Amino acid sequence: MMQIWGLHGIGEIVTGDDLATIIGDAAEHADPGLAGGDIVVVTSKIVSKAEGRFVTADDREDAITAETVRVVASRTNPNTGSTTRIVENRLGIVQAAAGVDASNTPEGTVLLLPEDPDASARRIAAALRERFGCDVGVLVSDTLGRAWRDGQIDQAIGSAGVTVFEDLRGSTDAQGRPLVVTLPCVADELCSAAELVKGKATGIPVAVVRGRGDLVGSLDLPGARTIPRTGPSDMFRKGYDEAYADGYEAGYSEGYEAGFEASS
Amino acid sequence: MMQIWGLHGIGEIVTGDDLATIIGDAAEHADPGLAGGDIVVVTSKIVSKAEGRFVTADDREDAITAETVRVVASRTNPNTGSTTRIVENRLGIVQAAAGVDASNTPEGTVLLLPEDPDASARRIAAALRERFGCDVGVLVSDTLGRAWRDGQIDQAIGSAGVTVFEDLRGSTDAQGRPLVVTLPCVADELCSAAELVKGKATGIPVAVVRGRGDLVGSLDLPGARTIPRTGPSDMFRKGYDEAYADGYEAGYSEGYEAGFEASS
Repeated sequence: MMQIWGLHGIGEIVTGDDLATIIGDAAEHADPGLAGGDIVVVTSKIVSKAEGRFVTADDREDAITAETVRVVASRTNPNTGSTTRIVENRLGIVQAAAGVDASNTPEGTVLLLPEDPDASARRIAAALRERFGCDVGVLVSDTLGRAWRDGQIDQAIGSAGVTVFEDLRGSTDAQGRPLVVTLPCVADELCSAAELVKGKATGIPVAVVRGRGDLVGSLDLPGARTIPRTGPSDMFRKGYDEAYADGYEAGYSEGYEAGFEASS
Repeated sequence: MMQIWGLHGIGEIVTGDDLATIIGDAAEHADPGLAGGDIVVVTSKIVSKAEGRFVTADDREDAITAETVRVVASRTNPNTGSTTRIVENRLGIVQAAAGVDASNTPEGTVLLLPEDPDASARRIAAALRERFGCDVGVLVSDTLGRAWRDGQIDQAIGSAGVTVFEDLRGSTDAQGRPLVVTLPCVADELCSAAELVKGKATGIPVAVVRGRGDLVGSLDLPGARTIPRTGPSDMFRKGYDEAYADGYEAGYSEGYEAGFEASS
């Protein structure tokens, strides 16, 4: 039986707040409390706030540009004139707007993602383990859109002490044939599950997942930085229009030469 | 407090099995039982088996080709020679191998996805509601890979009586500014959560999620068919190599003409 609950009593977070203590206090006053094998899922927004990841932004678009390592795809809505940019950000995550957050931040500012969400998760996990004397895992979650499916889901951008992928590679099914699905991303699934008790409107920023203690282990386990897949092996490293433009440019150039030769 | 548990006692499923009754029997013998507001998440594999969605397949690749409406991207591993095909299947879902399943099926056969997972969900939901006299929702889940992130997660391909998207469009944050994340796909998040108590190896094909009864409603609610986003508005309707090739072809043709003209 897996249980998931939101932690109440976590108020507005400001720069310099000791998140590990605040979360620990909330957990101590909660029923049930924290126990070994629990996984604490922390919304990246409060991690960013505590770490002071605000930037002055007269223009949210400027902030997105600054956080963009590479534009994957962009589209301008002809009716509204607004542009959606799917980009690869400094964390290697491909998401809309580079993860820059303009909701629930003071006027004239936007909020960047934590600089190193795995490290943030680790600090919180280490402090909670020390305080409660038991092994808990910590995930930092963010809300992401996805290709080919509408809407958004919560996924893991930081992890400490949690198995990120269940590695079933080499496993076989009941008939002894190799399993096709080999790498369930349990960190992402845990963050999705946690979102169901948080809620964008009610604003509960931390949830606890109990029941998969088998996924909790050493703080040295690989982090969520192992999840993004980008680079030359990424079949979707650019959007259709952008890739088409690359091909068109190369084709035009080679076609021009060939045509020129053919007619001379 | 959200609770999620696997339903035990569901054995091997064969063609013609009455899934609604089998699930109902398992639920009746389980503790806790089923109650109004519960969401039953059924792995698509057993839905396909009960519906006899086997095809003879000397070659799994032939079956994939038959289920493919449109190739989105494909890549051949130069070392192993094996080809990965990401395609749009009959359900409009973009996934590897068109959803064709070669695990845990009799030798010489592969398993296709249910023909209409929303309808399958509806049949099961209607039967469970009748039997238990309370409103439950039903989701049919499948395991999908995704762009830009390694590994796989469970998502919804069928839905009955469950709110698929929480619609926050037009909502504002605490400062009165419009929310940016407007469409949490709770159906996908519920399926991800359910996977955590199922397990590819242990093979528990049905889970129950309790605690989001607010998401359970009329069997006429929109189904999971509303989730896939494909077509001309899909920024990633083809992989990089495929889109590049489209552009190259067009560019070469136009460049050739221009070069020919320039030299004549």
